[in-house]
Amino acid sequence: MNASSLIEPRTLRGFRDYLPETMIPRERLMETARRVYRSYGFAPIDTPALEYTEILLGKGGQETDKQLFRFQDAGQRDVAMRFDLTVPLARFVAQHLPLLGTPFKRYHIAPVWRGENPQKGRFREFYQCDFDTIGTLSNSADIETSLVMHELLLALGVTSFSMRINNRMVLNGLLEKTGLAGQTGPVLRALDKLAKIGPEAVLAELTTEAGADKEQAQAVLSLASLKGTNDEILSKLDGLLAGNERGQEGVGRLRELCRATAAVGVAPERLRIDVSIARGLDYYTGTVYETFLDALPKIGSICSGGRYDNLAGLYTKEQLPGVGASLGLDRLLAALEELGLVEKVSTPAAVFIPFFAADHLTDYLQLAAKLRAAGLGVEFYPEAKKLGAQLKYADRRGFRVAVIVGQDEFTAGTCQVKDLTKQQGQTVPLGDVVSTVKLLLGA
Amino acid sequence: MNASSLIEPRTLRGFRDYLPETMIPRERLMETARRVYRSYGFAPIDTPALEYTEILLGKGGQETDKQLFRFQDAGQRDVAMRFDLTVPLARFVAQHLPLLGTPFKRYHIAPVWRGENPQKGRFREFYQCDFDTIGTLSNSADIETSLVMHELLLALGVTSFSMRINNRMVLNGLLEKTGLAGQTGPVLRALDKLAKIGPEAVLAELTTEAGADKEQAQAVLSLASLKGTNDEILSKLDGLLAGNERGQEGVGRLRELCRATAAVGVAPERLRIDVSIARGLDYYTGTVYETFLDALPKIGSICSGGRYDNLAGLYTKEQLPGVGASLGLDRLLAALEELGLVEKVSTPAAVFIPFFAADHLTDYLQLAAKLRAAGLGVEFYPEAKKLGAQLKYADRRGFRVAVIVGQDEFTAGTCQVKDLTKQQGQTVPLGDVVSTVKLLLGA
Repeated sequence: MNASSLIEPRTLRGFRDYLPETMIPRERLMETARRVYRSYGFAPIDTPALEYTEILLGKGGQETDKQLFRFQDAGQRDVAMRFDLTVPLARFVAQHLPLLGTPFKRYHIAPVWRGENPQKGRFREFYQCDFDTIGTLSNSADIETSLVMHELLLALGVTSFSMRINNRMVLNGLLEKTGLAGQTGPVLRALDKLAKIGPEAVLAELTTEAGADKEQAQAVLSLASLKGTNDEILSKLDGLLAGNERGQEGVGRLRELCRATAAVGVAPERLRIDVSIARGLDYYTGTVYETFLDALPKIGSICSGGRYDNLAGLYTKEQLPGVGASLGLDRLLAALEELGLVEKVSTPAAVFIPFFAADHLTDYLQLAAKLRAAGLGVEFYPEAKKLGAQLKYADRRGFRVAVIVGQDEFTAGTCQVKDLTKQQGQTVPLGDVVSTVKLLLGA
Repeated sequence: MNASSLIEPRTLRGFRDYLPETMIPRERLMETARRVYRSYGFAPIDTPALEYTEILLGKGGQETDKQLFRFQDAGQRDVAMRFDLTVPLARFVAQHLPLLGTPFKRYHIAPVWRGENPQKGRFREFYQCDFDTIGTLSNSADIETSLVMHELLLALGVTSFSMRINNRMVLNGLLEKTGLAGQTGPVLRALDKLAKIGPEAVLAELTTEAGADKEQAQAVLSLASLKGTNDEILSKLDGLLAGNERGQEGVGRLRELCRATAAVGVAPERLRIDVSIARGLDYYTGTVYETFLDALPKIGSICSGGRYDNLAGLYTKEQLPGVGASLGLDRLLAALEELGLVEKVSTPAAVFIPFFAADHLTDYLQLAAKLRAAGLGVEFYPEAKKLGAQLKYADRRGFRVAVIVGQDEFTAGTCQVKDLTKQQGQTVPLGDVVSTVKLLLGA
């Protein structure tokens, strides 16, 4: 084949390949998420990448509809690739409800596709990593959601973070109490700009857009501006919402959540009530969650979610409330890289065995098998060539230890165990190779 | 919303949802595969679900081209969903070769899509689970491939299986020697029917389709009909291929593979030379592998692969030989189900804590946290309701142990630990709950 007939190897705009050095930490994140989700009894599910377009349309707003990868399949069906895991969950639960039963706790880690304009850190294919508890109104599920988020971040090696908690019933209660019930949408849109445009401009917008008078606007702004410890905020909320049932229920749920999470060891600085959080303008109806990295607040929330009244109302008459959250896997990975918390290796194995006594293939394979049987990851170089070239390869890949055996060592029953990080070697009897390597790896 | 405006919740023809009881063992298979691949130094990669159609067309044959999910994206690009993981690997390696270096060992576990006619056990979306070593001609990589397959099956809990090994150079050598070089295609197609149409009809087809005379046809048939132990077959092959370099190299490679795998503990009944195996009519050029379950030979090979000369010739002038194999994840899962080797549970957690002393939420959460800290998976029921209903739920989900604590037990500092399989309970101090549960679970 001549060069002119070659097809250019390239990925589509907005899509990317994962090379080992990115995929290894990515897989580690996913495995950690699975382990934590499972330890709370969340079960894995999977749904197809393709759905009937009617299932997906209109669920994520006009913007999402435009971004759908949508086409006619060979059977003339109007189909599209999923753009999130929540709409497929709703369809899934509606379809299989009698089999699933409630409460139904599931996690789902899978790619989704959106034809967004590609920009730094935004791709047209990315993973979501969701967990939800369906079919219960109990605050216990909301509490558990924050415990899972907390444990997940710790397990991922993130220690400096804060979860921000709010409850949509608090604002709704205040709107009821001040006579602004029904104005939730415009009020939330105005409050959402608080950090950007300042209190005066928000007051003005509340007046023009939500029809609030001066006193009403001021009450709303005071609520959203509450600061202090969780206890201080809760006590101020008690005052602001006295006499309003919905608002008080919201405050009661927040209070119970703070107490219960503290009782199982969540440090107060890691879980903060933040009344300004207004996640999911229309979707969420109770507790809402966001999570920020202390070192990188600007990247936004890396784990978010909330409680909703009715998951699958478009597909079933059954009312299914629930609560859940989603880990922003790719955003977190980018952040961990930026914080230097991701090790640069392109091998999942720690141990490298060069091959240079060509007649001893079987001996090398037995040595590798022995190390693997002890739980170690071992790569054996496939070709008997110069040691230097093989060690250069090992270095580029990021192996931590090399076990070097040549003709002389096989005869003497020894091997050289080399710490590739410190470039220090020691000669040990072959019988001690497992313990020596384990010691070096701290395993 | 009234019922008439509901959207019917349904999956596309040929696609399916994975409910927990199927997804739990499926995830376990994938995790095991990842663990085994990694322990040999294979590194994970991922590629996009969508590729430029020109990358995918014509690589899997006309049948595969017709089955592509192909469409124009919003930017008028001609795109398609990948139908396997080998073509994307070829594109990936050609694109990133300087970064990757060789030898490059990768695994890739991901869904692929084919618009096949759905039938029992065949879906339009299914997972592939591939591993390959790129950039080396060394037989050591072929040997390692069989070791990985062997270890993978054992790790998956499959004990009665046989890997069938052949080398395409053996047949090619014989064809050269008998004067049928260049007739590999028709010869393979004829031999492929041996079991179905019998030796006489194959002899006839070799004559009509491959232009063989009687003696040539007989030589080919003798080769494909060789039976016996690996040593017996190797020794007969030595005779049949005496004087032909290519054939002798094939026999030499098979012999070395048998010896080396035996030396690291692969039982001879699990690795058999089978000269009739002609996997991948044009693609493979050296060692070929298939794997059959002793109890279910009819489902076909569950792990197959081989050596190829040139992975990425369509995208780069660089010649990249390699060897690899693919685990048929879904086929294997179906087989394990049929053999009763898949446990029917729909929870990944072993321990269930019912919630029925409503005032003790925090105590329950602490109890659950304590069990989780000991490495146990624990689901806490979210609502304080009747114990009977909660235990029925636990039974349906498949939990193995319930830790039951009511008002009285909290006061007395005890709990009831119930083996849900045997329906036996015992009352123990709360301080002993972890050890008691671990003992019951044999953990």
